Amino acid sequence: MEENSPEEQHPIKAFGWAASDASGVLSPFRFSRRTTGEKDVQIKIMYCGICHTDLHFTKNDWCSTEYPIIPGHEIVGVVTEVGNRAIKFKIGDKVGVGCIVGSCLSCEDCDNNLENYCKTAIATYNSTYHDRTPTYGGYSNIVVVDEHFVVRIPDKLPLDGAAPLLCAGITTYSPLRHFGLDKPGMHVGIVGLGGLGHVGVKFAKAFGAKVTVISTSPHKEKEAIDHLLADSFLVSTDDDQMKAAVNTMDGIIDTVSAVHPLLPLISLLKSHGKLILVGAPSRPLELPVFPLLAGRKTIAGSGIGGIQETQEMLEFAAEHNIVCDIEGIPMDYVNTAMERLARADVKYRFVIDVANTLKACE
Amino acid sequence: MEENSPEEQHPIKAFGWAASDASGVLSPFRFSRRTTGEKDVQIKIMYCGICHTDLHFTKNDWCSTEYPIIPGHEIVGVVTEVGNRAIKFKIGDKVGVGCIVGSCLSCEDCDNNLENYCKTAIATYNSTYHDRTPTYGGYSNIVVVDEHFVVRIPDKLPLDGAAPLLCAGITTYSPLRHFGLDKPGMHVGIVGLGGLGHVGVKFAKAFGAKVTVISTSPHKEKEAIDHLLADSFLVSTDDDQMKAAVNTMDGIIDTVSAVHPLLPLISLLKSHGKLILVGAPSRPLELPVFPLLAGRKTIAGSGIGGIQETQEMLEFAAEHNIVCDIEGIPMDYVNTAMERLARADVKYRFVIDVANTLKACE
Repeated sequence: MEENSPEEQHPIKAFGWAASDASGVLSPFRFSRRTTGEKDVQIKIMYCGICHTDLHFTKNDWCSTEYPIIPGHEIVGVVTEVGNRAIKFKIGDKVGVGCIVGSCLSCEDCDNNLENYCKTAIATYNSTYHDRTPTYGGYSNIVVVDEHFVVRIPDKLPLDGAAPLLCAGITTYSPLRHFGLDKPGMHVGIVGLGGLGHVGVKFAKAFGAKVTVISTSPHKEKEAIDHLLADSFLVSTDDDQMKAAVNTMDGIIDTVSAVHPLLPLISLLKSHGKLILVGAPSRPLELPVFPLLAGRKTIAGSGIGGIQETQEMLEFAAEHNIVCDIEGIPMDYVNTAMERLARADVKYRFVIDVANTLKACE
Repeated sequence: MEENSPEEQHPIKAFGWAASDASGVLSPFRFSRRTTGEKDVQIKIMYCGICHTDLHFTKNDWCSTEYPIIPGHEIVGVVTEVGNRAIKFKIGDKVGVGCIVGSCLSCEDCDNNLENYCKTAIATYNSTYHDRTPTYGGYSNIVVVDEHFVVRIPDKLPLDGAAPLLCAGITTYSPLRHFGLDKPGMHVGIVGLGGLGHVGVKFAKAFGAKVTVISTSPHKEKEAIDHLLADSFLVSTDDDQMKAAVNTMDGIIDTVSAVHPLLPLISLLKSHGKLILVGAPSRPLELPVFPLLAGRKTIAGSGIGGIQETQEMLEFAAEHNIVCDIEGIPMDYVNTAMERLARADVKYRFVIDVANTLKACE
């Protein structure tokens, strides 16, 4: 076996499920983790959410995948080892790891607790760590992470339902906060009722906003209103409904990653309203400029959140009893889950029961 | 003559230059103005700037022109009559009228001194006033305006150089202020060095920003640096120059109204940077989303400014000796000026010497 093979790169034996080519099919995989460094914690992984990004990366949709890849950046687990100089956690603590496991910690963004925007942020998988080894994600038994990038899961939160908060949760919480859509009385639109959208509705409601779900799927209305407690529902393909709602929203969180028209959404905004994109369409969208000028409207992007804000989001979720609606699955169901995710057949997030179902490789 | 002809609509005889069809050719034109209402002032027009919008409207580029049209919304003049209940001005005051002459004065935007974003704002020309008569612009001898929409020209400002501040000036001043690009040490980009861009550079410099002009025309560099005192100059078609400036700007005011790529401009922004569009391309632009997400960047539109802010802008201009660089022209040069404007052959704004060169129609 070569020294730089995944199994030999580090001293600690580990196992998980990896994809080895663009078929995206995941299968059992032996690799290794580094020993717990001075400021690291070692975490036994309990649950890991399946984010749509995982699907994109396993299939190399963005032409940036380095195989083998172990996906997973919605990780919750229990601390099993603590480095000499690590001070945030002790053994047994319930913790979470989201989309990033490293950054420079010295740039302006890092100084402002916005490590997620650091130009050299290190992704939890399909990235290269400071030691030049590949990072592997949470579809695996253990992970070793610089404690700076680890957050505490409040006792009140169930670990499985909390897992997707580490990505889907912070991705919607952060822009609601940053763009001032977190105030009672605001009218907030949420476009797309999937993993991100459903938790976006919960946060926006908890902030006291009036929430309207905007979707192409009329059949989601009952669920949005009755279960997620959205105040109203718009079918984006229904011109009459959309026209009646023109100029009514203070802000919109758009979670859709398919190419879609922006003009109808811009039209829903009041003057000075903000359309925040958190999905990443692979091709450019059409931007009509005049409707922006006429109402001093804003279109912005937002990507996850900083570590401090992720912790704050978890505390807020605990306080307001917000968790993701999940379908728990065993590890060996993951390929089926990926297929179902590809056709949006999940309410609203698959979460892998890693601790109970991931078996050590033979 | 019909009662609703421009000449008979109102009691006060007036004259100016109008275009009567999509050729856009302007020629002498008799019309009428309303008598000075209780809250109106009557203004003898001294100067009127030629805005690129005037060219679009005379040629019906936006398919919304109602002929005959008298353009002109960069108007300065002297008050000649004051309504009974008008309190802001007295006869002899030097005043200005910009892009709007009316709004509802009761909506949220109007309440917030943002009449420019009022859904029923009335444009200075090619619009319909409260009395259902057409509005006619400043290529004319007199205008009667609700004093709310009239601003005072500070004594320090020359009337001709001040005229384009009413549109070009406020269009760049307002977003610099609103989007927080008005602070010393900020690095601000100005895209396009025309009527809007050149005064944008002056305001941004006066706010203490480091200013970089971004242009497709390398020959404008000397002028930008030596005359307008920009700190640096980027040729937008020079990949090396653009690459070297990536991630350096806090904000960009984009004055270009031609269809153009946004990605190079987005790339110039630091994380959390803002690209403000003030030009209105006739077709949608391409919006690449991922670069927005990766840096929480913003694209916004901004259109002129409210009346109070327009007054504030004029005071600021007076304090900092900011006027537009103009080429004064007589009224009968206007068609030639329009042709030259169409090929960007002006530094930086034509201003018509209305009082001295507009002759009464025979």
